[in-house]
Amino acid sequence: MERQQKIPEYSLPRMNRQVLLSSRPQGIPLAENFTLDEAAVPAPADGQFLVRNIYLSVDPAQRGWASVEANYGTPVELGTPMRALTVGVVVASRHDDYPEGLFVYGWFGWQDYCLASPELVVRRIDRMDIPLSFNAGLLGINGLTAYIALMECGRPAARDLVLISTAAGAVGSLVGQISRLKGCRTIGLTGSDEKVARCLEHFGYDKAFNYHTANLGEELRRHAPDGINIFFDNTGGSILDRSLRYMAVGGRIAQCGTAATAQWNPVPTGLRNEREVLTRRLRWSGFVVFDHAAEFENVATILANWYLAGDIVYDEDISNGLESAPGALSELYAGKNQGKRLIFIG
Amino acid sequence: MERQQKIPEYSLPRMNRQVLLSSRPQGIPLAENFTLDEAAVPAPADGQFLVRNIYLSVDPAQRGWASVEANYGTPVELGTPMRALTVGVVVASRHDDYPEGLFVYGWFGWQDYCLASPELVVRRIDRMDIPLSFNAGLLGINGLTAYIALMECGRPAARDLVLISTAAGAVGSLVGQISRLKGCRTIGLTGSDEKVARCLEHFGYDKAFNYHTANLGEELRRHAPDGINIFFDNTGGSILDRSLRYMAVGGRIAQCGTAATAQWNPVPTGLRNEREVLTRRLRWSGFVVFDHAAEFENVATILANWYLAGDIVYDEDISNGLESAPGALSELYAGKNQGKRLIFIG
Repeated sequence: MERQQKIPEYSLPRMNRQVLLSSRPQGIPLAENFTLDEAAVPAPADGQFLVRNIYLSVDPAQRGWASVEANYGTPVELGTPMRALTVGVVVASRHDDYPEGLFVYGWFGWQDYCLASPELVVRRIDRMDIPLSFNAGLLGINGLTAYIALMECGRPAARDLVLISTAAGAVGSLVGQISRLKGCRTIGLTGSDEKVARCLEHFGYDKAFNYHTANLGEELRRHAPDGINIFFDNTGGSILDRSLRYMAVGGRIAQCGTAATAQWNPVPTGLRNEREVLTRRLRWSGFVVFDHAAEFENVATILANWYLAGDIVYDEDISNGLESAPGALSELYAGKNQGKRLIFIG
Repeated sequence: MERQQKIPEYSLPRMNRQVLLSSRPQGIPLAENFTLDEAAVPAPADGQFLVRNIYLSVDPAQRGWASVEANYGTPVELGTPMRALTVGVVVASRHDDYPEGLFVYGWFGWQDYCLASPELVVRRIDRMDIPLSFNAGLLGINGLTAYIALMECGRPAARDLVLISTAAGAVGSLVGQISRLKGCRTIGLTGSDEKVARCLEHFGYDKAFNYHTANLGEELRRHAPDGINIFFDNTGGSILDRSLRYMAVGGRIAQCGTAATAQWNPVPTGLRNEREVLTRRLRWSGFVVFDHAAEFENVATILANWYLAGDIVYDEDISNGLESAPGALSELYAGKNQGKRLIFIG
């Protein structure tokens, strides 16, 4: 694969517009929790480089990063740019391994520019045969989570029945397709009739249900008479409680998100699940993709090749301009996007 | 090891006294759910053999077997002998592999005699250098569960911190000692101050607490500042909910029992735990020992050798006579025994 061609023509310096986290969200971050601000574009010191962001990613995990409750990162400090993954390009460099013109995917935040050092880079983008933006989703944490969590926590075998919540989302839609490529049968759970149709017609699920309107217990009793072998869960809450009761003996649960619960303080209650874990001999695993960095390159190659071969579809929902960032997370949790949610600020 | 010596002198035939399950328990089986009855001693047909029970086992899992809610077995039918593991001896045989005089551990029920076939045998007892009764506990499902669940679900590494509920029980006390032999640090949770003392002085736990009186959160905060690596849980309920919040990242939970919840219909509620599973990247596994029959002989040898070398202690609490069986389960759940609960009817 040939390395990319030339440095994009961004005029330097210009002001660095930033989306700051200005107040602590109660649950899901709203537009009013952020403010737009400007700062001077910083200059790289030795060992640093300057990244000009092109695509900002909008990810459910940002809710946790903005929260005062530690999840798997320290909380974003108030008054600083919102933590976010982005795809950008190096526009000034004092680090030999990160030359000008290199495209990178990493922790560059909701802002125009980021003064970066190597530990902020999640992946170097060396491959130009698929769209640049795909590096923020299909080959970013969404695709990497879908593949690695399914394989490591789910251990799919041919003919396994895989149940997937947020089935039409950026992660779930890939889990459904990868499961099918592994020879599994799939049931998708999603939040609207329109998304149910997309699950069936576009993503190739065997079955799909709207969890707001379907009788989940009845559907699982009918369509999973021998039990669910793998539950890839991005929601938690009552969807989890109900689904657990239809797991097969020896079933595996990958807990990759808890989108159904907006507020964890105080901790909400639900059905006790330990008897299901015990009697069904379940294996219930929590998954955070950043524990698996050593696998990223191999998995990104697998996913890119599947896409290029036409084996999987991958959709994006891209808005324009940094000013669309503050409201993007609440829209994401409202399920308004159709495809991976990005913001183009190039 | 020399095979055993001679057939015990039981005069045959005599009446077969049986403890029948006569009504369905609400939660924990009480004495009034059972009746004593007598039947003729049956004669073995081709391929069968007659077992004279010597030690009846009293196990927490019997609660599930007596319940109308299926757990990992079909419910015991009303009017039939209570399902139980026992140690007995073959007193009449029409099966060449199960000759008269062979001691066996298996599903022979709360009764004097059982007409048996090979699928009822859990282990043949070939080793006479440890007490016969130990085959119903240390080398039976208690010891086998302790060892296999700890190793397979817990994957102990040296210096891991292992938390054990029902720490002074027949399973828990062995988990604590095996953990120590594997180089782990141990915290035991148990139900009385007397048992706390036994955990510390007799079973060698590093720390032990009475979960009825200790502030569990405070004790874990103090004594597990870096988190719990393995939680071997036989209780579930609020002990589970509280302990999960002190697990280390990457911690493992072996769910081997749910003794804290007496009644599962309707399903009780508790704290939602999926966020803990996710953010701490836990692996929470249900364990039923009968899935692991292929390992029983090797593990029984390991346990017997540890005992003979003085590396582990193992206690029994043995009552006399079949008439002590009906009340034994409720006494077990009340924590009245000190050591593995058996009934001698030899």
